[in-house]
Amino acid sequence: MHIYKREQIAAKVKLDSAALEAVEAGFAALGRDEVAMPPILSMNIAESNGEVDVKTAHIRGWLRFAVKISPGFFDNPALGLPSLNGLMLLFSAKTGVVDAVLFDEGYLTDIRTALAGAIAAKHLAREDAQRVAVIGAGVQAELQVAALRLVRDIREVHVHSRDASKAEAYAVHMRNQYGLTVTVHNSAAAACAEADIVVTTTPSREPVLRWSDLPKGVHVTAMGSDNPHKNELEPTILASADVLVVDRLSQSRALGELHHAPALQREVFELGSLIAEGRKARSSAEQITVCDLTGTGVQDTAIANYAARLLEEV
Amino acid sequence: MHIYKREQIAAKVKLDSAALEAVEAGFAALGRDEVAMPPILSMNIAESNGEVDVKTAHIRGWLRFAVKISPGFFDNPALGLPSLNGLMLLFSAKTGVVDAVLFDEGYLTDIRTALAGAIAAKHLAREDAQRVAVIGAGVQAELQVAALRLVRDIREVHVHSRDASKAEAYAVHMRNQYGLTVTVHNSAAAACAEADIVVTTTPSREPVLRWSDLPKGVHVTAMGSDNPHKNELEPTILASADVLVVDRLSQSRALGELHHAPALQREVFELGSLIAEGRKARSSAEQITVCDLTGTGVQDTAIANYAARLLEEV
Repeated sequence: MHIYKREQIAAKVKLDSAALEAVEAGFAALGRDEVAMPPILSMNIAESNGEVDVKTAHIRGWLRFAVKISPGFFDNPALGLPSLNGLMLLFSAKTGVVDAVLFDEGYLTDIRTALAGAIAAKHLAREDAQRVAVIGAGVQAELQVAALRLVRDIREVHVHSRDASKAEAYAVHMRNQYGLTVTVHNSAAAACAEADIVVTTTPSREPVLRWSDLPKGVHVTAMGSDNPHKNELEPTILASADVLVVDRLSQSRALGELHHAPALQREVFELGSLIAEGRKARSSAEQITVCDLTGTGVQDTAIANYAARLLEEV
Repeated sequence: MHIYKREQIAAKVKLDSAALEAVEAGFAALGRDEVAMPPILSMNIAESNGEVDVKTAHIRGWLRFAVKISPGFFDNPALGLPSLNGLMLLFSAKTGVVDAVLFDEGYLTDIRTALAGAIAAKHLAREDAQRVAVIGAGVQAELQVAALRLVRDIREVHVHSRDASKAEAYAVHMRNQYGLTVTVHNSAAAACAEADIVVTTTPSREPVLRWSDLPKGVHVTAMGSDNPHKNELEPTILASADVLVVDRLSQSRALGELHHAPALQREVFELGSLIAEGRKARSSAEQITVCDLTGTGVQDTAIANYAARLLEEV
């Protein structure tokens, strides 16, 4: 059995095309119905403002499956610790024996989450998309943009955050780190006005994006909501979008954006099905496409296998 | 972070009164409604005749909670490997940081499962119980009897197993290991005829015990069923017992004996509630008491904390 620490993992696994292909293969397998993926195990620890989620999936024919344990303890910053944490374990899919423990402290979750946003944009955004609006200014606000650069020629970032000082710091960092043109806006509407791609990356419990904020031809990825209380998109967006996609229907209904639009009657695609079928969901440059990402166990099994392969290379 | 292997854990954690008290404290907390315990995560891996279960629970006020991952791969014996496996992880209940990993390979599950049987008998069997009937001849057939010795003056074991040669081997082992009088029977009815306590320890999908097999005054613990397909007790037993107890109602209904008696209308106690309230459920020496155990996350959190305390002692 091999045990790997965050530093070792981060030295090998990067936001690059190979990692994107690994996660995309997981979505495609899901779309081909080749994946066993039970509902998420979720426990609240109210006394510490904490929660722990466990996700898993097995892709038929793969030699190993991952189980990921993700604690989120939201009073940690006051203790000088990050809120998010966790590890992934790889088990033999033939014997159930533990094969590797990846003490990634949430690093691989950050990566596979950002890559899912890139995969959504790859299949849904206009080919010529250059301008990204980002709502929120945390870790994913950076990583989503970094991952989008793998699939589109991103030039400009337009950011809005409730916390203006965080947005300013984000802008400085993104200019220095990626050489992007970054503009801070004082509203989501202003940030989105000329966007080709919008990514919402907040833990908001109230919509941060309205239908009226969205220009023609935009693609929207909402990646913040992962529990029943969180909600980033006004339900009108789900109803009015030309194309609506989710990572997993059952999860989006239970803890994603669909949870806040229970009466919605329309066609909803799963991202994996679009990939598996090679279907072009966007049929014109004017259409508005929307993808809700809740985070799936198949991404964890895909990225953990990918990480282990890199770590095991001699 | 500390990592412990099976040998280290088995050297410290024994089937003794201290371990029993630790698990009983977990049940009592559950009975006082002081436990967060989400439904079990369960995934099947059909291509390898395997499954993986994840259980967790947090006891309010405790410093650490456990997450247990239990793979069961039932073609393993043909490969020279045990079917059951797994590990427990202890996390800080304040920060979510991993504190210890117990690579116990299912050892602690065996222990806490046997102790739950002893705890059920402690609270439900007659004080003068001496004769145990055991249905099945596997690991739990031994450990349930060993654990019962902590709470009752067990003298005789009456065993029945579908596989007669396993029952004979079991009898030899139990005589040598524990100095017990052990008799092998060719039916469950014969094994139970004069029993004070009956324990069913099988993975059967058909009842192994009939109401007509049970003598007056007996206590029955059914610990084998832990998925919707398994079933050890004829539903009449659940309907006719004077006292019916389960470890967790929601679990017994979903994957225990209550799953096979959906129309049952009667009072059902949870074991933890009896303990928490100090209630004597048995009111006469003639009553028949029944307890269905499905295995709960609170037992895992209790035994993992207990094990870690012993392992951390200098």
